Amino acid sequence: MALNVSDIGEKQLVNYILSQSKSIVADDTAITEFNDTNLISTCDMLIESKHFPKDMSYFQMGFKSVTVNVSDLAAMGAEPLGFLLSIAIPKDLAIDSFKQIIKGVIDACSYYNIPLIGGDTNEASEIIISGTALGLCDNPMMKNTARNGDLICLTGDIGMAALGFNLNGDNIYTKKSLEPYARLNEGQIIKKAGATSATDITDGLASELYEMKPDSLGFMIYEEKLEISDEFKKMSADLGLDYLDLLLHVGEDFELVFTISKDNDLDLDYRVIGEVNASDKIEITLIDGEVTEIENRGYNHYVS
Amino acid sequence: MALNVSDIGEKQLVNYILSQSKSIVADDTAITEFNDTNLISTCDMLIESKHFPKDMSYFQMGFKSVTVNVSDLAAMGAEPLGFLLSIAIPKDLAIDSFKQIIKGVIDACSYYNIPLIGGDTNEASEIIISGTALGLCDNPMMKNTARNGDLICLTGDIGMAALGFNLNGDNIYTKKSLEPYARLNEGQIIKKAGATSATDITDGLASELYEMKPDSLGFMIYEEKLEISDEFKKMSADLGLDYLDLLLHVGEDFELVFTISKDNDLDLDYRVIGEVNASDKIEITLIDGEVTEIENRGYNHYVS
Repeated sequence: MALNVSDIGEKQLVNYILSQSKSIVADDTAITEFNDTNLISTCDMLIESKHFPKDMSYFQMGFKSVTVNVSDLAAMGAEPLGFLLSIAIPKDLAIDSFKQIIKGVIDACSYYNIPLIGGDTNEASEIIISGTALGLCDNPMMKNTARNGDLICLTGDIGMAALGFNLNGDNIYTKKSLEPYARLNEGQIIKKAGATSATDITDGLASELYEMKPDSLGFMIYEEKLEISDEFKKMSADLGLDYLDLLLHVGEDFELVFTISKDNDLDLDYRVIGEVNASDKIEITLIDGEVTEIENRGYNHYVS
Repeated sequence: MALNVSDIGEKQLVNYILSQSKSIVADDTAITEFNDTNLISTCDMLIESKHFPKDMSYFQMGFKSVTVNVSDLAAMGAEPLGFLLSIAIPKDLAIDSFKQIIKGVIDACSYYNIPLIGGDTNEASEIIISGTALGLCDNPMMKNTARNGDLICLTGDIGMAALGFNLNGDNIYTKKSLEPYARLNEGQIIKKAGATSATDITDGLASELYEMKPDSLGFMIYEEKLEISDEFKKMSADLGLDYLDLLLHVGEDFELVFTISKDNDLDLDYRVIGEVNASDKIEITLIDGEVTEIENRGYNHYVS
């Protein structure tokens, strides 16, 4: 029987595309040398039924479509240059709803100081927003260039959006799941401080760490250093969910995970959560001292 | 009753977005000044149920997704820099079909000499391909900068795809509707020869002429100079279609329409179809000598 795309999963599809093109860098973001600097370009498509939780407002849909793309610029430490918006909407969408989506896009562009420079409109059976973010960067941070002995760090709390997807009402968790912000300024500060690698957390910390891991090096994460609140643990338990699973395997936080030398003078509110070692494994030291390998599992399209 | 987007049409939606952003140029393509040149960027989304005729192969879907975007670079006379592919496919699509789409994209990138530099994959209920083409151009040709007395010209036959959409089998018309090519080299040659304005024909010649018309100037097109073949007229009639309607109001040819001084040394196989005048109208002189205004009507999403 012929195989369908659901039999192989998204990473295999991406790998197939990579294998067919000599010009793609295997990062989330394209780097094109350009007049003594680099043009950074990235595109991400959001689809109503897949990416927008039911409580998300039209404004938030527009805002998030900019955030997901700007987050890829942030992960490289790039300066924003321009945003292109390709949007498809159903015929029967109210004009006011369309205007709210556009307001979300415009407000996000203003927030990130990235001009909306172009776009395309279309009709579809559901809302589809495909954004392209362009940026400039002299020396972009890459994903898999950590060095042995580096610290592993986060720009903020993770797992918040993951919990938020399971909650209703207005709280710090649903706020993060419905209206996340990209860490654009933080990315630039981290780059200037000499971070050795960085990426943004979209598919979950575990999945990102596996993409960051250089050959023969390993990562050790400490649960204690994740500073998980009692409230987070209790709310997860009340929902019948494993709090570590929410933290490691869901994502959508848009925080940056990065590595940097122990000897650094990074002036930023950040959190050290582990270190790079020579174990060739990605492990976590749990609160009780047990060391266990982190599973390579995150959000995966196609595979049901 | 609240208005839906189908009540106002695509151009109104685009105008709304333009009114909300100070940074968008009202062209199909964004121009960003950068280090003594301009970065040209454009995005176009193709949706299976709207843009892909039923006879179109997966290969041709991939190829066309590059062509529609490269065509916007061609209209400015830009040099290609890179292509980003954002693709969503249904779970139950056969892997071989996915590979054919990617082959179409890769072959088109190779044909236009534009490297595939990045992308994104997603799941959706139908095939959606959103492309972004990036290019460079010192002095881009704009849409609405024609001068009084200029010639109006085409890079090739139009109406071919329009007829092809109504035909089956393998012929010059269906070939154009299923596998159109962008006029990338021609755009660069036209620009070097000093064309005063240009655009690509996507929504039909009529619609493009209305977008090209400078305030207070007008265009006169001559049916005779469109050199419509007897075969084209006969096949249109056999289908119960008006051949001039196919030529003027459908589009998807991806030929360039441009204006240029009568005193030019453009070295290209092209066709003069009319001239710019001071009439403030867009008219056609029919074969029988009658002069009539061309209707401002082209392909319009949303309006049913």
